[in-house]
Amino acid sequence: MGLIFRQLFESVSSTYTYILADEETKEAVIIDPVMETAERDAQLVEELGLTLKYAVNTHVHADHVTGTGELKKRIGGCKSVISKAAGAKADMFLNNGDKVEFGKYHLEARSTPGHTNGCMTYVLNDKSRAFTGDALLIRGCGRTDFQQGSPLTLYESVHTQILSLPQDCLLYPAHDYKGRTVTSVGEELKFNPRLTKSKEEFANIMNNLNLNYPKQIDRAVPANMMCGVFETPSVSQ
Amino acid sequence: MGLIFRQLFESVSSTYTYILADEETKEAVIIDPVMETAERDAQLVEELGLTLKYAVNTHVHADHVTGTGELKKRIGGCKSVISKAAGAKADMFLNNGDKVEFGKYHLEARSTPGHTNGCMTYVLNDKSRAFTGDALLIRGCGRTDFQQGSPLTLYESVHTQILSLPQDCLLYPAHDYKGRTVTSVGEELKFNPRLTKSKEEFANIMNNLNLNYPKQIDRAVPANMMCGVFETPSVSQ
Ligand SMILES: [Fe+2]
Ligand SMILES: [Fe+2]
Repeated sequence: MGLIFRQLFESVSSTYTYILADEETKEAVIIDPVMETAERDAQLVEELGLTLKYAVNTHVHADHVTGTGELKKRIGGCKSVISKAAGAKADMFLNNGDKVEFGKYHLEARSTPGHTNGCMTYVLNDKSRAFTGDALLIRGCGRTDFQQGSPLTLYESVHTQILSLPQDCLLYPAHDYKGRTVTSVGEELKFNPRLTKSKEEFANIMNNLNLNYPKQIDRAVPANMMCGVFETPSVSQ
Repeated sequence: MGLIFRQLFESVSSTYTYILADEETKEAVIIDPVMETAERDAQLVEELGLTLKYAVNTHVHADHVTGTGELKKRIGGCKSVISKAAGAKADMFLNNGDKVEFGKYHLEARSTPGHTNGCMTYVLNDKSRAFTGDALLIRGCGRTDFQQGSPLTLYESVHTQILSLPQDCLLYPAHDYKGRTVTSVGEELKFNPRLTKSKEEFANIMNNLNLNYPKQIDRAVPANMMCGVFETPSVSQ
C-alpha cells in the first residue's frame, strides 16, 4: 500500500493543488487548494475515501484566494496550516523543520523565504518529491518585488533548501504557465535560466522584471491572511 | 533506473500530452503531442537527453492539430504512429495487440473504437498506467456523434479493454476540462456518471448530449489524417 498522489490545476490563476494520502490509513493532506476549485477537490477527497487532516498553504498567495476556508467548511476536522512566519491566521503554524504527518508519511516543512517571508517548501519524507510553492517554478521562480520579496534571500533559500535535495527529487511548483506539471532538482540545476546564474546576476534579473501588478492581489492577500476563512458576500465573486 | 514520465497540458484545447522514457536507455515515446506546444515538448525531450523514437496518436483528433509533424521536423529519427484503423498517414501503423517499444518498456496498443473507429488505448507493459485518448475521460468519455462515433461500440471498448485493467491502474486521458490530471480504473468503475450505467442508458445519454460542433474540426481532421505533416502557410494559425 503506497502513496496516493494527485495533481490538480486551476486554470484562471494557473495554480497547482496537490493531494497526498496514505493508501492504507487514508489520511490525507492538500497543498495550495484554490477557492474556486475547492468543491472539486472536496469531492475527490470524498470519492477516494480520504480523511483530509490538513489543508496546507505554501505561502500567502497574491494571485488567488486559498481554498482552505472552503475545504474547512465542507470537511469536518480539516485544519488549515501555514508557516508561523507568514503572519496569517490558521489552525496550525509551522516552523522550519516541522513535520506534517499523514499516515506513515510526512511532509518536512523547510523555510524558503524570498518570494514572501513565510514561504515554505514541503518535502516528502523519502525526498522523492518536494512542493516548492512560488520559491522555485519550472525554469523560473516567484517574483520578489512585493510581499517582503528579496532576490538575495530567495537565491539562498532555493540553493540551500531545494536544489540541495537529491538530483532525481521531483519538484512540484504552485504554478506553471506553459502546461508543464513537474521538474526535478537535476533539471533545474542545469536549465533554470535564473537560478543557474550567480547571486548578483540573479538579483539583477529579478530587480528588472517589470511585471504587472497581480490582478487578484487586493482581494487575495487579505483573504489569505485569514487562510480563506472569512465572512463576506463576495466569497464566490 | 526507472521510468521517466511527464504529463504536459495544452490549454486552448485542454489536451494532455505524455512523454514516457526509459531512464537507462533514454529511449522515449510521446503520446498525443499538440502542434502549438511541439516546440516546448521538443525542448524538454532534448533537455532530458531523450531519444524520441515514436510520436504516437491515440486517434485522429478533431479538436487540435497533432504535434507529430512538428516533432518530426525537429527531431530526426522520430516516427509518427497511429492505428491502422484510423486510415491516416503515418510512418508506422498499429493493430490491436501491437507493442510500441522504448528501452525495457513497451506500450500495448488496444483497439478501443467508439469515439472514432481508429481509437487506441496504450497500456504500459506492467499495467500500472494506460493512456485512454478520448475513449475514457475522467468521469466522462469522448463524444460519439461524428467521426464514426458509436455509443454501443464505445461502451464495449471501455468495459472490455480499459475498465478490465487492474483497479489501481492509473488512467491518463487525452483531455480534462476541470484541471484533473489522472484517474484510476477503480474510480471510474465507481464514479463515471456515464459508464456505470447500462449499455442502453449509456447510448441514450450519448445520443442526447447536443454538443456544439468542435471549433477546430475543419482544420484539425484533415491535418491529423496526415499526422500533422503538411505543407501550408497556415501551419501556425
Ligand atoms: Fe505567490
Ligand atoms: Fe477526439
